[in-house]
Amino acid sequence: MLELPRLRTTESRVKVRYAETDQMGIAHHANYIVWFEIGRTDLCREAGFPYAEIEERGFLLVVTEIGCRYRTSFYYDDEVRIVTRLAEVGSRMMKFAYDLYLGDELRASGFTSHFWVDKTTRKPVRADEEVMRAFGPFL
Amino acid sequence: MLELPRLRTTESRVKVRYAETDQMGIAHHANYIVWFEIGRTDLCREAGFPYAEIEERGFLLVVTEIGCRYRTSFYYDDEVRIVTRLAEVGSRMMKFAYDLYLGDELRASGFTSHFWVDKTTRKPVRADEEVMRAFGPFL
Amino acid sequence: MLELPRLRTTESRVKVRYAETDQMGIAHHANYIVWFEIGRTDLCREAGFPYAEIEERGFLLVVTEIGCRYRTSFYYDDEVRIVTRLAEVGSRMMKFAYDLYLGDELRASGFTSHFWVDKTTRKPVRADEEVMRAFGPFL
Amino acid sequence: MLELPRLRTTESRVKVRYAETDQMGIAHHANYIVWFEIGRTDLCREAGFPYAEIEERGFLLVVTEIGCRYRTSFYYDDEVRIVTRLAEVGSRMMKFAYDLYLGDELRASGFTSHFWVDKTTRKPVRADEEVMRAFGPFL
Repeated sequence: MLELPRLRTTESRVKVRYAETDQMGIAHHANYIVWFEIGRTDLCREAGFPYAEIEERGFLLVVTEIGCRYRTSFYYDDEVRIVTRLAEVGSRMMKFAYDLYLGDELRASGFTSHFWVDKTTRKPVRADEEVMRAFGPFL
Repeated sequence: MLELPRLRTTESRVKVRYAETDQMGIAHHANYIVWFEIGRTDLCREAGFPYAEIEERGFLLVVTEIGCRYRTSFYYDDEVRIVTRLAEVGSRMMKFAYDLYLGDELRASGFTSHFWVDKTTRKPVRADEEVMRAFGPFL
Repeated sequence: MLELPRLRTTESRVKVRYAETDQMGIAHHANYIVWFEIGRTDLCREAGFPYAEIEERGFLLVVTEIGCRYRTSFYYDDEVRIVTRLAEVGSRMMKFAYDLYLGDELRASGFTSHFWVDKTTRKPVRADEEVMRAFGPFL
Repeated sequence: MLELPRLRTTESRVKVRYAETDQMGIAHHANYIVWFEIGRTDLCREAGFPYAEIEERGFLLVVTEIGCRYRTSFYYDDEVRIVTRLAEVGSRMMKFAYDLYLGDELRASGFTSHFWVDKTTRKPVRADEEVMRAFGPFL
């Protein structure tokens, strides 16, 4: 019997903070990048590598590129549902993709690309085997 | 003698705030999006339309897409030089491009796309003639 | 049978975001003020007046003073437990008090004072009866 | 002729960023704490100890208490004039006071208290002589 590959995602929820609104009366667009980071943190935790532990192992996951498309605004106190998946993974880089929903309605999508850096030298490195194995199932 | 068109840009400067650093010891990547906004504010002012005035005329410039590539980090107290130009302008949309420098060294680049929205109805609209004329020379 | 007055509090939880850390490796102190606001939002909701509804009724709760004492730092991914209570309430003002815990350990305390302002005129006003009655039990 | 002691202050200027506004249409109150930090950074620089250098000497200036009174709001693009002075200084602690002006109009005042901490052990320490001598004239 064939087991079909499933695209694994994690789901996180944040309420839009008053401090995150701007004078247009909507959540300021820069906060979406911070929400992406919350999704990424939760995916790492589910992969068995809380981000804090990744740093303890001597790695940093440095951001090299981000992008975000905004469809509909979020408002104060809205519950943002962040759906995060691993879009690409290599020994030297990772790319995460994010969809932001209000209920079932997609309101924004984006991605962040990263590469692994040695915490001390700040030079690009390959992540160790154990880290890579943990993220594999999310692809 | 032919006068060649010049690509008009504006230049803004911000110091990296302590609050903008993160535990990697660098400026957190979400702040770049806020710095872009400072560049955009200054370009609008130089075009003769301080953004506050645009809103008073009944328009909002809503963000539809952003992107940023990170080359080298900025650190606390670094002076970020933001060079902003108008990359595209239409009756319904505008696109700004940004280069972030430390001295003469390019450390990040990005863009933001926007469309004009009526402040009251929140529906997409065409900006009025006067607004468009002001931004023309920046193309 | 005598019903004893209970000091009513609400409890909120937030995880320290990576973006909230600074280069000391701790949660930057300005974020505590934002966390207070989350506690206040939750207390208003439990009182039957989600803050969004307060604004719809034509009131704003403007901040007049804040204070915070920091005992021990919070770190990335710590779950901050925010315990919020109404410290004072009058027809024209409200004061909220906040204790921030990690588990059972008190790490910071603070307060925010506010007065009611008419959303349109931006002048100080008395909150209506219904609003006041809702907050009474929290005292 | 007697020269009276002058209270030395430093002055910093920041423009209110769009991202710093909230849906009330004013600068969100938590940002004032970040502006205080900009004032403190500038005072340290004028004292001959850029804060980055203080950290390089192995010290951190940890926040123990803050307070702020808000009189009148700041709005988007307002130029906030931050006047910073050293309110107290001891071998183990420092207290800074801040006044925030729009032009000549005082709009908010506050303070931050700090103690010196060893960067490595994170234990309270006395700042070295050179640091103390630098800040003396600001009292």
